[in-house]
Amino acid sequence: MGSPETTSFSSQSSSSKLLFRQLFEKESSTYTYLLADASHPDRPALLIDPVDKTVERDLSLIKDLGLKLIYAMNTHVHADHVTGTGLIKTKVPGVKSVISKASGSKADILIEPGDKIQFGSLFLEVRATPGHTLGCVTYVTGDGPDQHQPRLAFTGDALLIRGCGRTDFQIFTLPKETFVYPAHDYKGFSVSTVGEEILYNPRLTKNEETFKGIMENLNLAYPKMIDIAVPANMVCGLQDMTSKV
Amino acid sequence: MGSPETTSFSSQSSSSKLLFRQLFEKESSTYTYLLADASHPDRPALLIDPVDKTVERDLSLIKDLGLKLIYAMNTHVHADHVTGTGLIKTKVPGVKSVISKASGSKADILIEPGDKIQFGSLFLEVRATPGHTLGCVTYVTGDGPDQHQPRLAFTGDALLIRGCGRTDFQIFTLPKETFVYPAHDYKGFSVSTVGEEILYNPRLTKNEETFKGIMENLNLAYPKMIDIAVPANMVCGLQDMTSKV
Repeated sequence: MGSPETTSFSSQSSSSKLLFRQLFEKESSTYTYLLADASHPDRPALLIDPVDKTVERDLSLIKDLGLKLIYAMNTHVHADHVTGTGLIKTKVPGVKSVISKASGSKADILIEPGDKIQFGSLFLEVRATPGHTLGCVTYVTGDGPDQHQPRLAFTGDALLIRGCGRTDFQIFTLPKETFVYPAHDYKGFSVSTVGEEILYNPRLTKNEETFKGIMENLNLAYPKMIDIAVPANMVCGLQDMTSKV
Repeated sequence: MGSPETTSFSSQSSSSKLLFRQLFEKESSTYTYLLADASHPDRPALLIDPVDKTVERDLSLIKDLGLKLIYAMNTHVHADHVTGTGLIKTKVPGVKSVISKASGSKADILIEPGDKIQFGSLFLEVRATPGHTLGCVTYVTGDGPDQHQPRLAFTGDALLIRGCGRTDFQIFTLPKETFVYPAHDYKGFSVSTVGEEILYNPRLTKNEETFKGIMENLNLAYPKMIDIAVPANMVCGLQDMTSKV
């Protein structure tokens, strides 16, 4: 007690110790999430959706907290920023990049729905939430006596707070008190719950016909970063850098 | 269970139910915090450091969550944005504005160090943390069997994550696992702990002489919003609006 390892929201179980931090990249309004098992002697950690521009900040925090980064993961191939996973791999030897097999991307570990990603005595569960992209997955903290309660769902772009997704079937079957942590927020929200999004998400409370109408009439601009970000992210940032140099 | 009232981090005590949300205003990098007692029949809520530009968002969230807003509070007289408290008072009758007596500002309730601000069965404690301004206070969630553990400290501009303050004496005497929630963050951090800031805050780990040197040589620009924000915030946003109209 009394050192940075106590940096966790209290869990119902006293034997698990999830250290959890939400980090923000303003330009693309992207959230990066740091999770670690602070009660394990190795203090193994993972990053979900790191951004290339904030890699230094993230690695500095990981060092301050005395963690050992083992996974740099993505929820999907992002079109609005370049993932930090490639850069992280060049700076921290041994870190494995993780993305879904269905994304068609390169990575050290290609996960599939139902897979478990273990870090210490904690784990994440993989749920398929395609729609925004074919390979979108949602990572959900484990269910069980030693896991954090309520559960946390990292939804990527599949479900934003009071925003879109068409992948609510997988996410909305989680317990209503599950915390929803998306990849972005443009209004300054930081977290929601499954129960709230079922009630108040302006798109997902509509029937299929109305939803299609909304989505077809958004008239969104061509994403600024897409031509740079997608090719880079298909190789998890700089996956091939070492083999090319 | 299963409705939005379960939106809280689990507390060590099962009888208290802190509903907690961190909200962000990008232009001034300001955090607004929403706290409520979700287990009380009235679901009383308070906002710390609301911003005028995001009042609609905040009130909409409060409505979605079925809360009754009772206090709109400030940690200090802000120089970088206009507080939302005045606007909130015109929109939600009965809400009381709260600021420290030492700030010299007008408000419905002028609090002093040691005061307790009760909402349902939960409360905030007021600690004097002058330095950034003479009237700066830090609000800390209560200590006791029915209160949230670890405690949360809303530090305003007195202590930023890995950033400034010279008011560490009051804040750094809190238990090291206390979560630190500041009024701003410019790097995308969202929370820290007292233990981390004691170890890694680049300013507060220095001796007094070095600290003075750092602060005297920052060469900061004249704050953009100061001439608009300070006069407005000295009357808690629009405190006198109704009496003038």
